[in-house]
Amino acid sequence: MQRQSDRPPLKVGILGATGTVGQRFITLLSVHPWFTIHALGASSRSIGKPYATAVNWKQVTHMPSAVKDMVVQECKPDAFAECSVVFSGLDADVAGEIESAFRAAELAVFSNAKNFRRDPHVPLVVPLVNPGHLSILEQQKALHSPPLKKGFIVTNANCSTTAHVIPLAALEKKFGPIDALMVTTMQAISGAGYPGVPSLDIIDNVVPYISGEEEKIEWETRKILGGISDVDPEQPVGDKALQQFDMHADTPLKISASCNRVPVTVGHMMNVSVQFSRRPPPSPQQVCEALSSYRPDAQLQGCPSAPLQTITVHEEPDRPQPRMDRAHQDGAGVSVGRVRQCPVFDIKFVVLADNVSIGAATSSIINAEYAILKGIVEG
Amino acid sequence: MQRQSDRPPLKVGILGATGTVGQRFITLLSVHPWFTIHALGASSRSIGKPYATAVNWKQVTHMPSAVKDMVVQECKPDAFAECSVVFSGLDADVAGEIESAFRAAELAVFSNAKNFRRDPHVPLVVPLVNPGHLSILEQQKALHSPPLKKGFIVTNANCSTTAHVIPLAALEKKFGPIDALMVTTMQAISGAGYPGVPSLDIIDNVVPYISGEEEKIEWETRKILGGISDVDPEQPVGDKALQQFDMHADTPLKISASCNRVPVTVGHMMNVSVQFSRRPPPSPQQVCEALSSYRPDAQLQGCPSAPLQTITVHEEPDRPQPRMDRAHQDGAGVSVGRVRQCPVFDIKFVVLADNVSIGAATSSIINAEYAILKGIVEG
Amino acid sequence: MQRQSDRPPLKVGILGATGTVGQRFITLLSVHPWFTIHALGASSRSIGKPYATAVNWKQVTHMPSAVKDMVVQECKPDAFAECSVVFSGLDADVAGEIESAFRAAELAVFSNAKNFRRDPHVPLVVPLVNPGHLSILEQQKALHSPPLKKGFIVTNANCSTTAHVIPLAALEKKFGPIDALMVTTMQAISGAGYPGVPSLDIIDNVVPYISGEEEKIEWETRKILGGISDVDPEQPVGDKALQQFDMHADTPLKISASCNRVPVTVGHMMNVSVQFSRRPPPSPQQVCEALSSYRPDAQLQGCPSAPLQTITVHEEPDRPQPRMDRAHQDGAGVSVGRVRQCPVFDIKFVVLADNVSIGAATSSIINAEYAILKGIVEG
Amino acid sequence: MQRQSDRPPLKVGILGATGTVGQRFITLLSVHPWFTIHALGASSRSIGKPYATAVNWKQVTHMPSAVKDMVVQECKPDAFAECSVVFSGLDADVAGEIESAFRAAELAVFSNAKNFRRDPHVPLVVPLVNPGHLSILEQQKALHSPPLKKGFIVTNANCSTTAHVIPLAALEKKFGPIDALMVTTMQAISGAGYPGVPSLDIIDNVVPYISGEEEKIEWETRKILGGISDVDPEQPVGDKALQQFDMHADTPLKISASCNRVPVTVGHMMNVSVQFSRRPPPSPQQVCEALSSYRPDAQLQGCPSAPLQTITVHEEPDRPQPRMDRAHQDGAGVSVGRVRQCPVFDIKFVVLADNVSIGAATSSIINAEYAILKGIVEG
Repeated sequence: MQRQSDRPPLKVGILGATGTVGQRFITLLSVHPWFTIHALGASSRSIGKPYATAVNWKQVTHMPSAVKDMVVQECKPDAFAECSVVFSGLDADVAGEIESAFRAAELAVFSNAKNFRRDPHVPLVVPLVNPGHLSILEQQKALHSPPLKKGFIVTNANCSTTAHVIPLAALEKKFGPIDALMVTTMQAISGAGYPGVPSLDIIDNVVPYISGEEEKIEWETRKILGGISDVDPEQPVGDKALQQFDMHADTPLKISASCNRVPVTVGHMMNVSVQFSRRPPPSPQQVCEALSSYRPDAQLQGCPSAPLQTITVHEEPDRPQPRMDRAHQDGAGVSVGRVRQCPVFDIKFVVLADNVSIGAATSSIINAEYAILKGIVEG
Repeated sequence: MQRQSDRPPLKVGILGATGTVGQRFITLLSVHPWFTIHALGASSRSIGKPYATAVNWKQVTHMPSAVKDMVVQECKPDAFAECSVVFSGLDADVAGEIESAFRAAELAVFSNAKNFRRDPHVPLVVPLVNPGHLSILEQQKALHSPPLKKGFIVTNANCSTTAHVIPLAALEKKFGPIDALMVTTMQAISGAGYPGVPSLDIIDNVVPYISGEEEKIEWETRKILGGISDVDPEQPVGDKALQQFDMHADTPLKISASCNRVPVTVGHMMNVSVQFSRRPPPSPQQVCEALSSYRPDAQLQGCPSAPLQTITVHEEPDRPQPRMDRAHQDGAGVSVGRVRQCPVFDIKFVVLADNVSIGAATSSIINAEYAILKGIVEG
Repeated sequence: MQRQSDRPPLKVGILGATGTVGQRFITLLSVHPWFTIHALGASSRSIGKPYATAVNWKQVTHMPSAVKDMVVQECKPDAFAECSVVFSGLDADVAGEIESAFRAAELAVFSNAKNFRRDPHVPLVVPLVNPGHLSILEQQKALHSPPLKKGFIVTNANCSTTAHVIPLAALEKKFGPIDALMVTTMQAISGAGYPGVPSLDIIDNVVPYISGEEEKIEWETRKILGGISDVDPEQPVGDKALQQFDMHADTPLKISASCNRVPVTVGHMMNVSVQFSRRPPPSPQQVCEALSSYRPDAQLQGCPSAPLQTITVHEEPDRPQPRMDRAHQDGAGVSVGRVRQCPVFDIKFVVLADNVSIGAATSSIINAEYAILKGIVEG
Repeated sequence: MQRQSDRPPLKVGILGATGTVGQRFITLLSVHPWFTIHALGASSRSIGKPYATAVNWKQVTHMPSAVKDMVVQECKPDAFAECSVVFSGLDADVAGEIESAFRAAELAVFSNAKNFRRDPHVPLVVPLVNPGHLSILEQQKALHSPPLKKGFIVTNANCSTTAHVIPLAALEKKFGPIDALMVTTMQAISGAGYPGVPSLDIIDNVVPYISGEEEKIEWETRKILGGISDVDPEQPVGDKALQQFDMHADTPLKISASCNRVPVTVGHMMNVSVQFSRRPPPSPQQVCEALSSYRPDAQLQGCPSAPLQTITVHEEPDRPQPRMDRAHQDGAGVSVGRVRQCPVFDIKFVVLADNVSIGAATSSIINAEYAILKGIVEG
C-alpha cells in the first residue's frame, strides 16, 4: 500500500529497531509516503549485522525487503546525522541517555519511551489530541545547555492512556471539562513487548496488575488533556514567559485506573465512566455524535497517517471487540461502543485501540508528520 | 473426599440434571455428608435414559458412579416426592413453571435459576451473606394459594453478584453502609453454560457485553445487601405484619456495573471501587482486616459446605488470578487482592470467585444446609 | 485493494451468503477484478431482508458497502438467472438439492459443499493442483437428464485436503508417485463454521477428533491427485469414451490421516510424512526446490486470485505458524517448513494453509476464473 | 490427602527446588506417605532465603506450609548428607556437575534432567515401563572412580517420551516387538518451564518445533523399550560381565517424531501409529484390552504413587483431551483413545499424559519408591 507523494523523501532513523516497537516502526515507515528509512540502531548484540540476521522478526507481515540488508548501527548520533527525524522504540533502561545524546546532537527525536514523558519541557503528545503542545519545543531548545537549534525530544503516551484520551478529548471539546473518570483496562499481551508475558501466566487467565500502568494513565491523562500556561512573566525565556503544562489544573480531574492483562494478542479494551462538570450532562446520543464528528487538527492539517475517522462509534451492543475491530484503518483510530448512562457517574462506554499502532508507533509517526507540516521539523 | 456424618442421609433431587449447573450439583452432592441423590430430572429428550447415556458430561472430574445408571425422570413432583430438598439447575425458559409446580406440591426448592429472584416473597440468598432472608419463607408459604406447609422456593444469586456481595457484606458489617459502587467484571465462559460462547467469539478476544448481566448485578446486590422491613402492621399475614425486602433503602446504594466476557474457562474476576458513607473512610489495612476476619453465620452455624476462610486476602500485587486461585477451598470462598485507595472513591480492590461453585451450585447447597440447621427444612 | 480489469464485469451469485463461507465469498468478490455481486441467497429466515440485517457478520474486515442493502433472495434459480457464475457456501444438509436445481436451470455452480465431491461426474478441483479435471464437465452435462448446455457443478475440496495436496502435487510432478502418506492435522476452529466449536471445548485444550474429516482427507486426496481415464471405449458418451476418475490407481497411494482441533482461529497446520516410489528418494534440498519452484497452471494461465508464490518454503526451524503466516498473500497460497528426512518414510515437513481462503472460498473463485479463461464459462 | 504409612519417614532433598519441576516435587512430596522434605537446594540467588521468599510459586495449589520457612541451601552435598534420596529438578546447564558431585558423595540421585540419560551406565527409567533397568546401578557404582557404595544417578525420561512408551510397553509385552512408529506431539507450554514460552508465540498459534525434542523421543524410546545385555563375558565388572543397554537392537525400531507446541497449559497429547512385527497384527479390540489390563511391576510391587489404572482407555470418539483428562488419578497414569486401524501401519491411537506429573516429578518419585521396595535404597 505504497502511498504517493510529491515531496522528496525525508531520511529517518529508528532506534531500538530490533524491538517490538522498532519492528512496527519499520513496517509502517517502509511504505510511508514522505519518509525513507536511512539508519537502524540497536544494542551492541546487533551492531554490524544485517538487519535480517539481527532481528527476531515478530510482525505478522513479512519483513520489508528494503531493510533486510541494512547494517544495524550503534545508537550514537553520528550514523544518524543525515536523518531529519529519529524515531525511538528504545527500552526505558537505555532510552534516557541515548535520546539525550541525540537531542544534544541537534536531532529531532520522536520517542515512544517513557523516560521524558514527565519532563516539564518535553511535550507528551497524542497526535489526535494535543499536537499543540509541540509549542513547548522552543522553550525546550532554549533552556538546553547549550541552547539548541534543531534538537528536541517529543514523546507520545502510554498505549492505554492514548486509547482513552482520544474520546475524552472529543468529549471535553464538545461538553467542557470532565470532573471524574473511572477506567478499567483489559490490555493485550503485545503491550508488554517480547518475550513479555510468559504464556503460563496468561492462558486461561487474567492478571489484575501491570506494574506502573495505573499511575501512568492517571498522570499522563492530566498532562495531555491539560493546557500550557505561563509560569511567571517576570522570568522570560528569550522574549517569552516561561511556560508549564497545567495538568488540567483549572478544573481538577480525578482519575482512578485499574489495569488488567488479558489473553489477547493485540488491542487494548477499556471500560470508562465519566462525570462532567456541566449540568445537565450530555445524553448518550449527544455523546455518540460528539465522538463520531470529532476531527482533530492532525487530520485537518493533512497528516497522511491520521485516520479518516478518528473515533468509530459502534451501535451493536457487543462491540468493539479486539479481534474484530483492532485492524480497522490499520489501527490508526479508536473504536467506541456501548455508550450509555452510568448509574453512578454520567456516561459510560467501551474503548478499543490497537496498542501497537495508534498506541505506539503510529502516534510517533503522526507527531512527526504534524511537526513537518507546521515547520517544526524541516521537511 | 467423602465427608463423614452421623445424620441419616437426606434424599435430594436435582432438576436440570444434565445441564452445566446440574452436573456440578451431582459432582458436589455425590460426596456430600448429609445428602444422597435420589432423583434426577431433565427435559423430554433425556427422560427414561440412564444418566450416563443422557448427559454430555463436561466436568473435569469423572462422573460419579452412583448416578451413571440412575434413570432420568420427567421434571414433575411425583418422582421427587420423597426428596427433602430439590435443587434446580433448570434453564430460565422452563424453571418458572416447573419450580412453581414443585413448590405447590410441598417440596422445598433451592434454585439457581433467575425466574423468582425478583419475587417479593422469595428470598434471594447468598449463603455467606444473607441467609437471614430465609425468614420470609413463612410469608411465602402463608400467601400461597392454597397456603403451604413445607413447599417454598429459595433462589441464589447470579454468579457475578455472588462474587462481589461477599466482600461488600463484610465491609458493610464492619464499616456501615456503602454509598456508591463501580464494578467491572471479566467473566469466564463457563458462566454461559454449554455450548454457550462460540470459540470464534472469544479466542484472542474480549466481548464487552453480557445480555442482562449488568442489570442483574445492580438489582440483585441491593436486594441481598438490604434488609427486610414491615410494610404495614395493619395488614398482617397471620399474626405478623406483611414484610418486604427494603432494597438497601435506608441508605440508597448507587451501583454501576460493566460486564465483559474473557477467554477464561472458570473464575469470574471483578475490579471494584467503593465509596462509604462513613467519614473518614476505612484505610486499606482496615479493609483487609475486615475482609480476612469475616465469619458469616453459615460458617458459624456449621454448614459443611461453607469454606473455612470465606474471604482470602492476597498480599501479592498480582493476585488473585482465575487459573491460580479459583480452585482454592474447592471454589467455596472468594479471593480478594490489590486492596488500595481509589483516587475517585474510597477503596478499590479485585475479587475472584469460582462462578460454577460458590457462584452457582455450592451456594444452593449451603442455602439448603443452613435451612436444615435452622429447622426450616426437616433434616 | 480494488483490482483493475478491462473486462466488463460478470454477474455472480452467492448461495449461503449469510454463513461463514458465504461471508468470505462476499469479502473476496466485492473487490474482484472480473466479478460483480448480483444476487445473494440464504435460508428462509433471511429472505427479503437487507443483507446487513440478515447477517451476523463475523469477518474481521468490515462489511462491503455494496452488499449492505442487497435484499437476500430465496435459493431458487430464478433470482440468479443472470449470473454467469454461482458460488455456493451452503451447508451440506441443503446443498445437494439446491445445487442440483441450479445446475438443472443451466447455471454454473462452484461449490464449497461436500455433497457432490464423490459424484463420479463432478470434478473435485483444488485449483492450484488439478484444474484439468474440469474436462469431465462435458460428460457431466451430456449425462444429465435432460442433457445440459451450460449447467454444471464444480466442487472444491475439504480445507485440510486442500492444504496438503498442493505440496504433494508439486512433489509428484517432480519426483513421481508417492506411495504412502501419514498426515496429522491441527485444525483451526473457523473450519467448523459459526457458532461451531463451543469455547468450553477448546480453550486450554485439544480435541483429537473431527467427525468425518479423516475419511475425507484420505478419499479426496486420491481423487485430486489421480487422473481421468477411459472406462470403456465401447460405451461412448457422445463421440467420446465414458471417463472416470482413476483415484491414483496406477500407483496405489496409502494414506493415514489423524485430525485434531486446536485453539487457533484461522490456519490449518499439518505434519506430513511421505514415501516416494522412486529410489533413491529426493533429498530435503531437492524437495525444497521442487516446492518453491512449483507453478501451477492456474497461475500460468493468469487467474487473478492465484497467488504469485504457490508454496512458500520457510528456512527458519520453527515456521510456518498459523498466526504469523496465514495472512501471507491474502491466504491464497500455502506455507511449508521443516523439510527434513523422515526416519521411517522418506521426507517429512509441515504445511500451513488459510482454511477459509485457499481452503474454501478462494479455491472456488480460482476455479471459476480458470473456467472462464478456458472458455468453460462464458466470460 | 495425607497418605498414611507405618514406615518412619525418610528424609529427602530437592535440587532445583524453586523451578517448575522442583515446585511439583514439593507439592507431591509434602503429602507423601514415606518421605519428609529435609533440604531444599537452589541457585545462588536463593541461598539463605526462606523458601517462600525465594520462590515464584506457580502451582495452582497453595504452597505447603511445611516448606515456607525452610532456608534454601546451596546445591552441595553437605546440606543433603542426611537425605536417603535426592530428587533433582535442576536445569540441564548445571545438573551435570551438581548431580555428579552428589553421586560422588554417596547420595542416591533421582533426576529429571537430561544430562545423564545417554550415559551407558545410568538407567533411563519410566517407572511404569522399565524399572528393571535399575539393575545397571551395581555396574554404575563399581565403575565409578573411586567405586561407590550407595551413590548413584537414576534418570527419568523426557515428558513426551514418557507419555508414549507406557502404551508402547503394554503393546510389546502383549504382542511382541514394534517395528515402526510414527508419532506427532501436541505439547503443553508447561513442558518448557517458566517463563518458558512467550505468550505472543503461542496464543492463537501452534509452533511446529521444539528444539531437540524429536531426537530425544526417537533415542530415549529405544533405550527404555530395549533390554540390557552382556557386552563381553571376558571383561567382567567384579564377578559379573560388563553390561550395556541394547537399544531395542534385536528387532530394530524405526521411530519418526514430529513435535508441536500448542496453547494448552498442562497435558501432552500425541497421535501415534504403530507397525508390529507380528502378522497378522492385533485388532483394535485386542489392543484396547492389552492397554486396559496392563499392570506394571511398579504397581504390583506397591509403589504408593503408582496409579491404580496405568492406562485408561476411552471409548468416546473425542477423548482423551488435555483439559478434561489430565487430572485423572492426579496425573499419574496415561489416557489412550481412538484406538483404530491405521491405513498405512497397523494401529493408530491418541495418548495423553500430564507432562508435569507422570511426565516429570511423579516418575522420579515412583522410581525412588521402587528402589526402596527393592532394597536399592535403604528405606
